[in-house]
Amino acid sequence: MAENPVRFGIIGCAEIARKVARAIDLAPNSILYAIASRSIEKAKNFAATNGLPENVKIYGSYDQVLDDPCVDAVYMPLPTSLHVHWAVLAARKKKHLLLEKPTAIDVAELDQILEACESNGVQFMGGSMWLHHPRTAKMKDLLSNYFGQLNFIHSQSTMPATPEFLESNIRVKPDLDALGALGDLAWYCIEAILWAKDYQLPTTVTALPDVTRNLAGVIFSCTASLHWDQPDTTVATIHCSFLSHWSMDMAICASKGSLHVKDFIIPNQEHFASFDFTLGSKFLDLHIGWSVKPEEVCVTSQLPQEALMVQELARLVEGIRKSKFRPDSKWPGISRKTQLVMDAVKKSIDLGCKPVNL
Amino acid sequence: MAENPVRFGIIGCAEIARKVARAIDLAPNSILYAIASRSIEKAKNFAATNGLPENVKIYGSYDQVLDDPCVDAVYMPLPTSLHVHWAVLAARKKKHLLLEKPTAIDVAELDQILEACESNGVQFMGGSMWLHHPRTAKMKDLLSNYFGQLNFIHSQSTMPATPEFLESNIRVKPDLDALGALGDLAWYCIEAILWAKDYQLPTTVTALPDVTRNLAGVIFSCTASLHWDQPDTTVATIHCSFLSHWSMDMAICASKGSLHVKDFIIPNQEHFASFDFTLGSKFLDLHIGWSVKPEEVCVTSQLPQEALMVQELARLVEGIRKSKFRPDSKWPGISRKTQLVMDAVKKSIDLGCKPVNL
Repeated sequence: MAENPVRFGIIGCAEIARKVARAIDLAPNSILYAIASRSIEKAKNFAATNGLPENVKIYGSYDQVLDDPCVDAVYMPLPTSLHVHWAVLAARKKKHLLLEKPTAIDVAELDQILEACESNGVQFMGGSMWLHHPRTAKMKDLLSNYFGQLNFIHSQSTMPATPEFLESNIRVKPDLDALGALGDLAWYCIEAILWAKDYQLPTTVTALPDVTRNLAGVIFSCTASLHWDQPDTTVATIHCSFLSHWSMDMAICASKGSLHVKDFIIPNQEHFASFDFTLGSKFLDLHIGWSVKPEEVCVTSQLPQEALMVQELARLVEGIRKSKFRPDSKWPGISRKTQLVMDAVKKSIDLGCKPVNL
Repeated sequence: MAENPVRFGIIGCAEIARKVARAIDLAPNSILYAIASRSIEKAKNFAATNGLPENVKIYGSYDQVLDDPCVDAVYMPLPTSLHVHWAVLAARKKKHLLLEKPTAIDVAELDQILEACESNGVQFMGGSMWLHHPRTAKMKDLLSNYFGQLNFIHSQSTMPATPEFLESNIRVKPDLDALGALGDLAWYCIEAILWAKDYQLPTTVTALPDVTRNLAGVIFSCTASLHWDQPDTTVATIHCSFLSHWSMDMAICASKGSLHVKDFIIPNQEHFASFDFTLGSKFLDLHIGWSVKPEEVCVTSQLPQEALMVQELARLVEGIRKSKFRPDSKWPGISRKTQLVMDAVKKSIDLGCKPVNL
């Protein structure tokens, strides 16, 4: 444990908060200091159910966390429509911010959040855990050094929502998570594609005419294509759905290599993740088989990816606190570009699948 | 070896003919009886290079094979633009027909071929080997019985063509294989998607605006989406390219399962092929990992898929010859639907990526 660990407060006792509470405990440079729900009973119940230490403060309102001077950073797994209010407030109270995805309803709201973080000198980070897994760095190394020109990327994220979820979960409520599967699942696909493209924004985004919505207009499933004209031509497709079984795919075709990963968002196993690729594969005589089999790369991780995420945020917070560093611009930049592309997909859907230029 | 094996003639000594010559030898109910090239020297050279038995007849013109009354069936790996002429002629000469893909430049030409086969009572089969692999049947069994509604399918086929290929191979010549990568590679993707959808034609086909062509207009790479409105909504994406490294992917998302196969066109190994799927997978507590890991299914095959293809055609030919069966309509039907969808992709590209209804 670090000498002065970064003290986290959690605002909102969503299911995902259980995972991040554990991650804050696992990360060597952070501790869970406080949790809050809108009711003290719910917060107490969360603490008891998850076996939180007795010294974790339990609050019955979000404001109490933000007003507690001992809280350094806030993890915020609130419904998306509440992000702008509470994230801006947290920044003004000088709390560093770990914000669940989708980071905002649209880039205008995200910009309010980022501006508040910037002007208050606090670190912003979106809650995408997979970006912190060492597998992700290993794949990037291969892509950058061996794959040549990226020509095609496909990414999909699907989850089999129950009828109850589709009826009443906050992620299908227009006043809470109006983006539905686009925000909850396609966020990762967009982020993965931007990650593969070194965060170069696409030229054009076009939704495909297969959008499924509920009666309130919340997206249950959709597909879209992303195009890059300059400097290199790349096309990417994304698909998200609450109506299909689990999938979390990324497939990359480049001039010199192919890569596949089937659990990029949440690895099958916590301490071990793999992907496979081919480079320089040719066919044997008579096309009987491949001369090089796809190579599987296994990457171990001492800490789960969510703890690595917390550790990275805490590291940046320590730098700001001890060394007076400026907040790092990398993480807000990734979230903002992801949000921009997600907005473009949404706009294309709303325009009846017309192409939207970025 | 069967008592009266079906005697094959091969018209055209393309590279792929080497593989099918071997397959005809391996299949227990067929023999290679004759080969022909446009020059006797080329045909002799093909026979010598591939160690064909001395009793295989070697002809210096295609007509000689068609006029040889001992030839029962013809395998035709000619450039696509020559298919309609030689396939119709073969049918008129009462030769059963194994025709390389793409089966024709468009469905109008394919219909001439199919009509000639029909009216002459000969069996037609397209040259798609993967449909005959036992892995394909195993995957179909899972899809039909356990996967529920198919929501999304992605298939891609890419090959890293050399500069010489892109300059001078017949598959990039507008007068020989005008369809380029669409015919050579996307044919399989379209077929795979139709296969998954039990050969139900899509409602709409739309090309995406990332088409790459050579100066003569031949397609080097393209992407398209296929939509089904009725009775079930499905969306599929295909991508083909001569400009990327090898890939042969099919990924299927259904309401109750996900399936991935990464070498569906040509298995990595000749006698062994695999795919993986998940069914009923849930996440462990705290979303720490998947409760069910993707299951890998391994399927062995005594004969390579191309020999199984030849065996199936020979079996049908035997049925016609011995039992006076009518030619089977399944294989012409598969080729025709694949051709129809390929035509629609081509038309959408030609229309500047407008949707094309089928």
